[in-house]
Amino acid sequence: MLEKVDLKKRVDKSEYKQTISQINTKLGELQRKAKDLKIPIIILFEGWSASGKGILINKLILSMDPRGSKVWSTDKLTEEEKMHPFLWTYWNKLPSKGRISILNKSWYKELLHSLINNSSQKRIKNIYEDISSYEKTLNEDGYLIIKFFLHIDKEEQKKRFKIIEDSHSMAWKVTEDDWKQNEDYDRYKKVFNDLLKNTNYKFSPWNIVEAENKKYATLKISKTLVKILEEKIDSIEKARKDKVEETSVKIETKHKHPSELSNYNLSLNIEKEEYSKQLHLYQKRLIDLQYMLYSKRIPVVILYEGMDAAGKGGNIRRLTEHMDPRGYEVIPISAPNIVEQEYHYLWRFWTKMPKDGHISIFDRSWYGRVLVEKVEGFCSYEDWTRAYDEINDMEKQLTNHGTILLKFFLQIDKDEQFKRFKAREDDPIKNWKITEEDWRNRSKWEEYENAINEMLYKTSTERAPWTVVESTDKKYARIKVLKKVVEALESKIK
Amino acid sequence: MLEKVDLKKRVDKSEYKQTISQINTKLGELQRKAKDLKIPIIILFEGWSASGKGILINKLILSMDPRGSKVWSTDKLTEEEKMHPFLWTYWNKLPSKGRISILNKSWYKELLHSLINNSSQKRIKNIYEDISSYEKTLNEDGYLIIKFFLHIDKEEQKKRFKIIEDSHSMAWKVTEDDWKQNEDYDRYKKVFNDLLKNTNYKFSPWNIVEAENKKYATLKISKTLVKILEEKIDSIEKARKDKVEETSVKIETKHKHPSELSNYNLSLNIEKEEYSKQLHLYQKRLIDLQYMLYSKRIPVVILYEGMDAAGKGGNIRRLTEHMDPRGYEVIPISAPNIVEQEYHYLWRFWTKMPKDGHISIFDRSWYGRVLVEKVEGFCSYEDWTRAYDEINDMEKQLTNHGTILLKFFLQIDKDEQFKRFKAREDDPIKNWKITEEDWRNRSKWEEYENAINEMLYKTSTERAPWTVVESTDKKYARIKVLKKVVEALESKIK
Repeated sequence: MLEKVDLKKRVDKSEYKQTISQINTKLGELQRKAKDLKIPIIILFEGWSASGKGILINKLILSMDPRGSKVWSTDKLTEEEKMHPFLWTYWNKLPSKGRISILNKSWYKELLHSLINNSSQKRIKNIYEDISSYEKTLNEDGYLIIKFFLHIDKEEQKKRFKIIEDSHSMAWKVTEDDWKQNEDYDRYKKVFNDLLKNTNYKFSPWNIVEAENKKYATLKISKTLVKILEEKIDSIEKARKDKVEETSVKIETKHKHPSELSNYNLSLNIEKEEYSKQLHLYQKRLIDLQYMLYSKRIPVVILYEGMDAAGKGGNIRRLTEHMDPRGYEVIPISAPNIVEQEYHYLWRFWTKMPKDGHISIFDRSWYGRVLVEKVEGFCSYEDWTRAYDEINDMEKQLTNHGTILLKFFLQIDKDEQFKRFKAREDDPIKNWKITEEDWRNRSKWEEYENAINEMLYKTSTERAPWTVVESTDKKYARIKVLKKVVEALESKIK
Repeated sequence: MLEKVDLKKRVDKSEYKQTISQINTKLGELQRKAKDLKIPIIILFEGWSASGKGILINKLILSMDPRGSKVWSTDKLTEEEKMHPFLWTYWNKLPSKGRISILNKSWYKELLHSLINNSSQKRIKNIYEDISSYEKTLNEDGYLIIKFFLHIDKEEQKKRFKIIEDSHSMAWKVTEDDWKQNEDYDRYKKVFNDLLKNTNYKFSPWNIVEAENKKYATLKISKTLVKILEEKIDSIEKARKDKVEETSVKIETKHKHPSELSNYNLSLNIEKEEYSKQLHLYQKRLIDLQYMLYSKRIPVVILYEGMDAAGKGGNIRRLTEHMDPRGYEVIPISAPNIVEQEYHYLWRFWTKMPKDGHISIFDRSWYGRVLVEKVEGFCSYEDWTRAYDEINDMEKQLTNHGTILLKFFLQIDKDEQFKRFKAREDDPIKNWKITEEDWRNRSKWEEYENAINEMLYKTSTERAPWTVVESTDKKYARIKVLKKVVEALESKIK
């Protein structure tokens, strides 16, 4: 994509002056429209060192309303960022609906780095996959991703490095790595070219900007933005008109999935004495394992789903009873709040993923989308059908990073639930735990069971399999989870 | 406070078993009540190395509802945290209304560190002041701060270090610093004692916990929490009853403050040619200064307040026109959103303070509390009268850290504002900028002017003085701000 670029393009001062204010007025208008339409926008800048990203980004933000946009420089990652999957950094910088994030360097930095340093083919493949599924996931949720690559040639780069080095206050900005890029210009160019070609997705293509002449580049960026925004806005307005009352034709999946749940013997149980012995054994082992994980910097995600009153709380308490609170966190998930609703639904989970060496335990999770949100109609048909892929992609991104991911589904039958609800209602200490909503959910038992079966069927992947936990006997369930966790951690630590 | 502590206190197994579940039930109940009353709670743990903070915190959270609390370990600060005023870390970990933050180590770490390392008297005095004003600010807003100090003696500490070192997985946890603490036990004890005495505030006293016997310590922590929560809840419920319709007796400040604003000659202006020359000069100088600030890691806060249509936006644009966007951010402030309303009103500003070496430019600021919120009655009389002190305290905390703080008030007169409003309405490109609200605010011109005078009078401190900027001539105003900024940065960099 860089082969046929004419870097000699220029624009003269008078032409620039005439055009720029006109385009910027237009851009301001489109920004306000995009805000009204609640389009979240990511504008990212990649390119050669000294290609002028800073200056051009500043030009861009001066032309926009600062109330709607934010610039993020991710050139140097923080320690915190380095201890997470590389996409975590960008989930944390995601714009909410109607807002704009401008990224000075982006997730492509990770890819460039791997390509230049000849990382393993597997690693490179993983990064390509992570990036494409990330952009796809955002795109399908309505995010607009606009990608600029600033291009200059070898001589120009060299000239600019020298000018910077000669200036008093900025000399420190040119690093050894920068000079290496200039010396290795041809190799870098080939790598950039491959990267651009391979990630030139239909829904988020690259825009190459000839960046030797500042005025030309400024104009090109503004014009490109105007064009892309206009198209997006038009397509949204058109789609709204075309939407001929199709909202009520909601198609239900009548297709039954293999009834995974029926394979489990819910009467499994454990003797009290045996329970105490094993509980002690595994909890003790977990203390050691937690410290080993920490020194090896391995992150762990453990998630719990299950029928209401299946005993998630008590199960989690036994799991964490002797853990060091500096290294784990229990994250209870309920309905998204008003801020969370303004983002992609995975945002609130991504931002809570553990640092390397830490454990996050989710009490309910992102599977809410294909359970409660699906059954209760809190999201659209398109949303939940798309969610299985989105979830598998996210879990792949986590395990690609080296995260241990364990998913537990705590199962009881309908009679057992009834008994537990009643017992809670009768107990003055516990009756705050039971609400109208619990009884309401219960009346949809079969629909939930159907949704669970579909979830188990579609999201039990090799890298992140589900464990169904027979929970009629709470003691049995606790030991099963503890054992599974201990085994999983041991196999990874060896 | 540590002199007369009896570390031999024990509780036997049967007594413990009897009491603990009873107390924890009570604690759960109080936690739910505190949540309903929307009390934000900070529980912090300090103490000797190996005094069992981790284990005791874990005991505590197992007895609480995880939906309402979060544990923060701040033993090791992140790079990001190190590049901010030390209280920034804790503003970021503040609980919202009705929630609980449990801190494993806290802002006292900074104080301990300075005392042990014999920092300058000035530095130590600053930290003491920062801490006392921080706790006072939170307390006055209804935050409950509960402070525990875990105490063990020299022999016990030594014994514990040895046990940890002998274990396979945890040996790395005992550091050289830990052993130094044990060797220097007596000196540390004296320092701890001073620290505890000097920060034993009436509104947030210390609770010393004898931590040699785990069961005793667990019980004492739970009992103390029950007692403090009960008292707080009682006092709130009592206050609500006693509130005899006093809400309408709102006392207005009739006292006039010196009319600062009238001192300024709003007809000041600058010739176009001179403007271009100086604009160019100062903007160019700012590029250099920004990079110097960055290499010296000095943070800068620049805030703008001013009458509507005084030209804040254009002024900020001229200031940032040639800055590097990697190092500055414009932060537009409007009414707090629904999440921000759940915190102390300074929270949303604290969390946006610049990293060392960076510049944050606030387009409107925390002064909203004593301007729009005061005039429009968006906060109570108690809230805004208290705010002057809170603001001065916060600005002191910033400048104690080395932050350069510049405050600009852009002033125009009532006729000029009318002319500008009209011009905006008539301009098809700009008329989205003018709203009903602008005209409404304008009708209260005198009240605003009065509030501004009081603000200038009460918050123009030596370390953070106000600069009133005559803004009838926008060009004059831009140069005045640029010049002031350049001079302030230069004087600090030399």
